[in-house]
Amino acid sequence: MFDKFHDECGIFGIHNHPEASNMTYLGLYALQHRGQESVGIASSDGARLQLTRAMGYVADAFDEDKLKALAGPFAIGHVRYSTSGDSGLKNAQPFLIDCAHGEIAICHNGNLVNAQELREGLVARGSIFQTTSDTEVLLHLYARSKAATVEDALVEAVSQVRGAFSLILLTKDSVITVRDPHGFRPLVIGRLGDAWIACSETCALDLIGASYERDVEPGEMFIAGPNGTRSIKPFPPAPLSHCIFEHVYFARPDSQVFGESVNEVRTELGRVLARETAIEADTVVPVPDSGVCAALGYAEESGLPFNMGLIRNHYVGRTFIEPRQSIRHFGVRVKLNPVRSLLAGKRVVLVDDSIVRGTTSRKLVRMIKAAGAREVHLRISCPPTISPCFYGVDTPRRSELIAATHSLEEIRTYLEADTLAYLSLDGLLSAVSDRRGSYCTSCYTGQYPIVSPRDEQAYLQLALKLDK
Amino acid sequence: MFDKFHDECGIFGIHNHPEASNMTYLGLYALQHRGQESVGIASSDGARLQLTRAMGYVADAFDEDKLKALAGPFAIGHVRYSTSGDSGLKNAQPFLIDCAHGEIAICHNGNLVNAQELREGLVARGSIFQTTSDTEVLLHLYARSKAATVEDALVEAVSQVRGAFSLILLTKDSVITVRDPHGFRPLVIGRLGDAWIACSETCALDLIGASYERDVEPGEMFIAGPNGTRSIKPFPPAPLSHCIFEHVYFARPDSQVFGESVNEVRTELGRVLARETAIEADTVVPVPDSGVCAALGYAEESGLPFNMGLIRNHYVGRTFIEPRQSIRHFGVRVKLNPVRSLLAGKRVVLVDDSIVRGTTSRKLVRMIKAAGAREVHLRISCPPTISPCFYGVDTPRRSELIAATHSLEEIRTYLEADTLAYLSLDGLLSAVSDRRGSYCTSCYTGQYPIVSPRDEQAYLQLALKLDK
Amino acid sequence: MFDKFHDECGIFGIHNHPEASNMTYLGLYALQHRGQESVGIASSDGARLQLTRAMGYVADAFDEDKLKALAGPFAIGHVRYSTSGDSGLKNAQPFLIDCAHGEIAICHNGNLVNAQELREGLVARGSIFQTTSDTEVLLHLYARSKAATVEDALVEAVSQVRGAFSLILLTKDSVITVRDPHGFRPLVIGRLGDAWIACSETCALDLIGASYERDVEPGEMFIAGPNGTRSIKPFPPAPLSHCIFEHVYFARPDSQVFGESVNEVRTELGRVLARETAIEADTVVPVPDSGVCAALGYAEESGLPFNMGLIRNHYVGRTFIEPRQSIRHFGVRVKLNPVRSLLAGKRVVLVDDSIVRGTTSRKLVRMIKAAGAREVHLRISCPPTISPCFYGVDTPRRSELIAATHSLEEIRTYLEADTLAYLSLDGLLSAVSDRRGSYCTSCYTGQYPIVSPRDEQAYLQLALKLDK
Amino acid sequence: MFDKFHDECGIFGIHNHPEASNMTYLGLYALQHRGQESVGIASSDGARLQLTRAMGYVADAFDEDKLKALAGPFAIGHVRYSTSGDSGLKNAQPFLIDCAHGEIAICHNGNLVNAQELREGLVARGSIFQTTSDTEVLLHLYARSKAATVEDALVEAVSQVRGAFSLILLTKDSVITVRDPHGFRPLVIGRLGDAWIACSETCALDLIGASYERDVEPGEMFIAGPNGTRSIKPFPPAPLSHCIFEHVYFARPDSQVFGESVNEVRTELGRVLARETAIEADTVVPVPDSGVCAALGYAEESGLPFNMGLIRNHYVGRTFIEPRQSIRHFGVRVKLNPVRSLLAGKRVVLVDDSIVRGTTSRKLVRMIKAAGAREVHLRISCPPTISPCFYGVDTPRRSELIAATHSLEEIRTYLEADTLAYLSLDGLLSAVSDRRGSYCTSCYTGQYPIVSPRDEQAYLQLALKLDK
Repeated sequence: MFDKFHDECGIFGIHNHPEASNMTYLGLYALQHRGQESVGIASSDGARLQLTRAMGYVADAFDEDKLKALAGPFAIGHVRYSTSGDSGLKNAQPFLIDCAHGEIAICHNGNLVNAQELREGLVARGSIFQTTSDTEVLLHLYARSKAATVEDALVEAVSQVRGAFSLILLTKDSVITVRDPHGFRPLVIGRLGDAWIACSETCALDLIGASYERDVEPGEMFIAGPNGTRSIKPFPPAPLSHCIFEHVYFARPDSQVFGESVNEVRTELGRVLARETAIEADTVVPVPDSGVCAALGYAEESGLPFNMGLIRNHYVGRTFIEPRQSIRHFGVRVKLNPVRSLLAGKRVVLVDDSIVRGTTSRKLVRMIKAAGAREVHLRISCPPTISPCFYGVDTPRRSELIAATHSLEEIRTYLEADTLAYLSLDGLLSAVSDRRGSYCTSCYTGQYPIVSPRDEQAYLQLALKLDK
Repeated sequence: MFDKFHDECGIFGIHNHPEASNMTYLGLYALQHRGQESVGIASSDGARLQLTRAMGYVADAFDEDKLKALAGPFAIGHVRYSTSGDSGLKNAQPFLIDCAHGEIAICHNGNLVNAQELREGLVARGSIFQTTSDTEVLLHLYARSKAATVEDALVEAVSQVRGAFSLILLTKDSVITVRDPHGFRPLVIGRLGDAWIACSETCALDLIGASYERDVEPGEMFIAGPNGTRSIKPFPPAPLSHCIFEHVYFARPDSQVFGESVNEVRTELGRVLARETAIEADTVVPVPDSGVCAALGYAEESGLPFNMGLIRNHYVGRTFIEPRQSIRHFGVRVKLNPVRSLLAGKRVVLVDDSIVRGTTSRKLVRMIKAAGAREVHLRISCPPTISPCFYGVDTPRRSELIAATHSLEEIRTYLEADTLAYLSLDGLLSAVSDRRGSYCTSCYTGQYPIVSPRDEQAYLQLALKLDK
Repeated sequence: MFDKFHDECGIFGIHNHPEASNMTYLGLYALQHRGQESVGIASSDGARLQLTRAMGYVADAFDEDKLKALAGPFAIGHVRYSTSGDSGLKNAQPFLIDCAHGEIAICHNGNLVNAQELREGLVARGSIFQTTSDTEVLLHLYARSKAATVEDALVEAVSQVRGAFSLILLTKDSVITVRDPHGFRPLVIGRLGDAWIACSETCALDLIGASYERDVEPGEMFIAGPNGTRSIKPFPPAPLSHCIFEHVYFARPDSQVFGESVNEVRTELGRVLARETAIEADTVVPVPDSGVCAALGYAEESGLPFNMGLIRNHYVGRTFIEPRQSIRHFGVRVKLNPVRSLLAGKRVVLVDDSIVRGTTSRKLVRMIKAAGAREVHLRISCPPTISPCFYGVDTPRRSELIAATHSLEEIRTYLEADTLAYLSLDGLLSAVSDRRGSYCTSCYTGQYPIVSPRDEQAYLQLALKLDK
Repeated sequence: MFDKFHDECGIFGIHNHPEASNMTYLGLYALQHRGQESVGIASSDGARLQLTRAMGYVADAFDEDKLKALAGPFAIGHVRYSTSGDSGLKNAQPFLIDCAHGEIAICHNGNLVNAQELREGLVARGSIFQTTSDTEVLLHLYARSKAATVEDALVEAVSQVRGAFSLILLTKDSVITVRDPHGFRPLVIGRLGDAWIACSETCALDLIGASYERDVEPGEMFIAGPNGTRSIKPFPPAPLSHCIFEHVYFARPDSQVFGESVNEVRTELGRVLARETAIEADTVVPVPDSGVCAALGYAEESGLPFNMGLIRNHYVGRTFIEPRQSIRHFGVRVKLNPVRSLLAGKRVVLVDDSIVRGTTSRKLVRMIKAAGAREVHLRISCPPTISPCFYGVDTPRRSELIAATHSLEEIRTYLEADTLAYLSLDGLLSAVSDRRGSYCTSCYTGQYPIVSPRDEQAYLQLALKLDK
């Protein structure tokens, strides 16, 4: 509904738990913010795999009967975001296939930049594709591997793909976790009694009462199988490229991501933002919920009072029947309502995490002014977003990114803000402390850690072609 | 899901708008927090009335076809909360009847304390009841009135009932608003172009871009009809008894209620709470969302840092499939997750708006301690709740209210908090400024502004009997 | 979907069965042909009544949970046909009310001709109406009765209404069955172990394995209560007026109605029709399923071979998405397909039970000719339908009845049949053997056994007004 | 619900019609009797293919929006029967893939007897399987073909499979129809204006007003493409093996199948049955609807009167909530009810098309006797069914076929019939006139026209393994 980048998926897997599918269901519920379009769970009873996928939210898609049918102590699951309603169930994960190495199911968070080349090669060699997902490429490579074991075949397949991938796979008796050598997307390991868990964020561990053990290391393959767990690092090392946008916006603030508390990082972003972009004002107001942490940091650092000047409606549905006689700011008002008593006559520092096209920000600024604010100073807790992402984030084309094509002053004028300021890239990196250099900042810099084999235009046209 | 008192309804009406039912749908959406069980809209095209009611949320219950079928420039609507799933559609409002005064539809927020006596009398005189709602009594009194006009008949009917009632009624060409002389429940008037609006809270006016005109006065009947609007005050005056719990918990913080900003009052409650119950601590953490305003006030007054130490999951469904192997704190964790980095090693002031049975608070305190908090100091932004409400609020029996039967120290021990403190009644009243004396505080004092014709026990048994 | 008169309801009640609501569900399923719009069941556990109503078919509307919630050994149920989708759940039966005589639920098959007068009187005396159903009038009369017992009050209420009514009522411990003195609509009594059953047709007894005991007599009130069963005849006797259309079309052929086998009567209609309207032809073809029995009789009597020349699609849904490029005879073809090999080159006697507007018959004749039939001789197993029914049958206005406004030859020309012949009234009555004089034939004669207090035009306008 | 063999699918395709998907929807509706579990339609606008699949009936699965989304003048569709609810959408057709030859969608009616061998070979060469359907094998063979054109690749793929297959395929601009050289399953060609149609039975042509042109010949590939239509016969000829069960039970009586009228054949089966198995009796009663044609033939030949002694309930749902207190013959009674007046005291010839396990027949015989029949003489219009089918028919294992393991007298005793007789194989073949030798009768003889590469036991175990 809002003008944001979107993470494309959340993944979860559990090995050796008597209620594996129920735990997966709960884990996916905790990861729902990473994908709301479709959800799926695959389970194994040690012999055969079962799969259920559905459109919609986790809590709506599964009932007790469906979970009961997903029997066995091993399970993996996936929530997916998609801009395209058409793509529907076809591309919903997990995928489950039968092949020379037996049955296997896969959940993938990320994006393979050489998927199209590989696909073309596979197609030429007689492979058939039933989805438009890059993940299907991996399955074909795996199936065609002559390696003797599941692990070796998987290593062989993964070695051929490039890009961002946090993977959780399910065979009849194992849950296998793989993270790309760059470590683009988060992936953590947890424990619950005798069970091992892998998932996108620690908040999924919290919900089921599991302990956080450690991150899956970039380039690591972690196997929980019938003979316990093993870890191997079969892929050549690569420069770290953690997605900094996970800290800026994607992850839940109660998660640990890339070894740091999201809430702490996000609050520090606000503090640095206040230092970098100080202005005389009366109150700091967040755009809920994503701007809350940074606004608290901003308020703390600036000494200005923090106020919930925008109230979120918690019953937001998918669509609204708008009257023909249009309502001013309807698009944002249906989700957020200004608190007049907190805004009237005030000089407001409005803190948001990011701006994509600027359409929502413009409506927000106008609505806050209509509620009586004397001045609105928009503060963004990351640098201007100027480049699309090719590593598993849903972004519009470069031409739609307002900061890619307009100057700061042009943006400010368009947004009708009194002032506008972004966090600097240095400021952003300073908030993630000692890990400087380990983050991917390509959306702010246009410098991509992995060069896509084709140029952007071709890539985006492909996406268009595939996503029928 | 949580351990709270609940408002029983939200109401909305609009007169003379070309898209009356669509506006009502949006107004009810903004009032959804006042009732999530059922929703209904009645409209009139000037000649005949139409009605649609459904279980569930506003956004799910109506689509474009249903709104189109609710034709005409006059409409009223209702959202309802109920503890009893069984009661279902039967008691969903609006009610729509045909009688000697023509067709009329009614929406009621409140509770009539003499409904049972009146019902017994009416039944004895041959009336039939199709619901277990006290509102149906009003319709019978209205239908039996020999008065010559709709208004006179309505005055005659309303004059016989006692209790809390904010009413919006729809005839073929008028929208009539009535508020009981005590002014228990909120009711405001707004304008949008040539249309007049009545609704429970101003946030509904905000969403449709209408202006807030004024509150319906206690004892006022406001008629928007074919000849414009008129206001009469046909009922004997009574001591004001605004429900103070609207400020404490029910209303949305972006609303004006009883002439004051809910956010402002609620923040002031936090400030007074800080002055009354100061303690040495490291951070102030709200129970979201209801405790946020008071926690901000508490933090401001105490100088302690405010932190979102509990993160709310925004995808909470109605039910969850819990594993057989129970998960600790599952009931609250599915809705709230602690942010370990903000709590670990900290002395936490946890601010909530109220405690009913204490079951949720106990789980919250335990969960926060399990996340590493060194101390948890629970602060409640209203006095101990010791008495049930008979004026339109869903409350458990007295015996289930923990503060009615236990000392402060007993409650603290049960909740496993290091300290526990409530706001004083004086402190509560001080936050609503110059209106001291105009509020009903019976849930804190047990002193009821209207004595129920029967004692509590009988009343509650009746409720049980009626609510089959 | 087809051009027929429609029975307006089927009713069922059972007293003293451990699974009363489940039996009622099955009974209603067997009576589904009498009403497909809505279905409802009320049950009593001896103390309180429960009610569930829903739109749609019996098999779709109830599941195990819903039946389990309808607890107790006493239950009644209703299936309803309605031309108006708008009327919806509001008018779905049973109705359940609380009144001076306690809780009572009612199911009604029929129509009260003086309902509007009574309603006006009741309204004037202060009654409120929540439906547009004539049945609600009965409840008000019952509630207003000063009689000391449920039975007496019911007798008093029923004594005031005129028209067609087969009623089954449920109190907390009794199932009461009432049939109007004219005996318009069918109503039978059955037994199953210790349980007593009342229902519209014997096919409902068959399904649950109950035995058919006897018909409820015209003017009888049959009470199955805590002290066993009793029968009283409190109403003044009246000339018998069994609805002959039950035999012609409404009832299931496997039922006994008015003491005779529907199949036998219907087959005899075909035999008489053959004698009265013989023609040289090659084959007798029924319009399935309603014309099958008569066609078999026709074939038997005429010596012509019987053939299923039209095949019914058993998966007919409520609506079909018709292409813009219209398909010839689509409306009938979607339900019936001609068997070319049986029709090509043949002189076909097409047997149907009745013609209302003639629109479907015209399409059928055309479709059969397009399938190659040399001649189509349409034979109708009842006389021309010239008058609407006021006794519980859904009929169009007189002006829409093709036989009311056109000559036989005009109808034949319109239908494009080579010949057209109806059964004579005498022929019709001869098929119901010794009961000549006991049937209502007003739809064929315009002579009504009960004169409506208002003229037809007024009546139909009323229907229009009520059925908003 | 009943104890029958089941056809596994119905297929439909249309080329060059402005409303191709709507026509396909209607065609599938007419073929609904061939598969009720799932339905799917794929369409092409000349460039890209679209696919929608759903569980359930055609009329429920599609609405106007879904058909509109299936744009373009080319479309194919499929209805599927399955015993296993678990298999669900995964195996629903059409399948749609992208491969070296571009996008292609496929609908298959039949069964490939060497699918497992081919699958194993493909898997060994690196193919991945996403379904358990034999049809997927064909797609892999097609994708791996090095042939230069779509047609050549298809010929190459089809040449490798053995068994029963009527195929309709969709490419971006062509609809290609293929029938196996044995001609196991029916497949016809029709025309509607400028459009070409292929479908399983002529009844689908009838519904949309298309003309029947001819059958697709065994071994023929018929291509409707941008340059008009072409027919090739690239496969080596094989002995004809039309499935005789299509005439006995599967096809709709209003269809032409294998060049003959199903109704005519089925009626003739009844006539021959009467000659072969004459008995003194009073009435001939069919088991509706499948026994009606044969019963009419039997009655005609025997001179006994034909009567609809069993009435079918037209509102049969998927499941029924059966009371704990079991009802006699509930399983059949919920679908069929005996007409006592036609059966009581009578010697009944009960005509059914086939017996599989005998469970339903036994209940029917008992129910008819309970309705008063003096004698029941069961007559079956085909020979004893002793072998399972491997050519696209859903049959139980041999051990469950009552006639495979019991003598005629044992079966009669089990069924509690007074006499029992089957049609002879010669009698059966005589009814299909001049085509003697062209039919597959393996279910009656155990002589299979294509020997399965593996023995039955292995085959059935495979089916079990695949059909997870």
